Amino acid sequence: MTTEPAEGGVAIEEIPREECISLLGSQVLGRVAVADFNAAPLVVPVNYALDGESVVFRTDYGSKFRLAVLREAPVSFEIDGVDPGRRSGWSVLLQGQATELGDEEVERLRLQPAPWAPGGKSHWVRISPQSVTGRRIRLAEPRGPDQRGYL
Amino acid sequence: MTTEPAEGGVAIEEIPREECISLLGSQVLGRVAVADFNAAPLVVPVNYALDGESVVFRTDYGSKFRLAVLREAPVSFEIDGVDPGRRSGWSVLLQGQATELGDEEVERLRLQPAPWAPGGKSHWVRISPQSVTGRRIRLAEPRGPDQRGYL
Repeated sequence: MTTEPAEGGVAIEEIPREECISLLGSQVLGRVAVADFNAAPLVVPVNYALDGESVVFRTDYGSKFRLAVLREAPVSFEIDGVDPGRRSGWSVLLQGQATELGDEEVERLRLQPAPWAPGGKSHWVRISPQSVTGRRIRLAEPRGPDQRGYL
Repeated sequence: MTTEPAEGGVAIEEIPREECISLLGSQVLGRVAVADFNAAPLVVPVNYALDGESVVFRTDYGSKFRLAVLREAPVSFEIDGVDPGRRSGWSVLLQGQATELGDEEVERLRLQPAPWAPGGKSHWVRISPQSVTGRRIRLAEPRGPDQRGYL
């Protein structure tokens, strides 16, 4: 579904799921967002790999983040980009359940164990998608100096 | 505080608040993350401007997002980037309270009202920081093909 841009406005187009997965496979950097009790969500950039339709990454950002990710609550994973010419951009949001990878799976995926500290244990996490959605947004006309760049 | 990278590992350095604000002033695209009842956080990329130490953006992504942002609960705003040479990256997380801007403030900031649809009303939001934190992360040594790019 596409809405036409109003004068001076924007148009938003939903990206089909298949294309969202393709975009997820084309990037290496995304952001994990998790709820934090009585606080704003934690948002942490991660380098990731796509395994089928799920996202796999290592939790280098410390135990608070890892514990938050591995709670029962669903987590979000976001990627975005700017289209050539910078007249439009896109984003993909994968939401689902996070689980820690076992050693066998880390080996199967040929993930580099790279310990956080010598003797330390690497923690790899998979987010299995419950939903994958994406949006492309484009401008109808140039903006003023307050809307530099992306949108 | 800096931790030295372990062999094959990473080092994380906290970015001082002042430098975080400077980084916020140097970018135009960030992501807003808000809690969503019984679901994973909503994460939406936005074009933003820095006004003092607060972040100002327009909520083009629809009323669900806007209403989530303007609830009482604190929201997060994240930016990140990759350093030249791609051996390190950084991220800044601003967390705080979101409020909708009144018409006078939109005018003062010379924000372009650009309605979502003809006759529609633009909604501008300010996030006033309760905390601003940042991290720089760098690699100790090259990674395998599973760690392409950023980290």
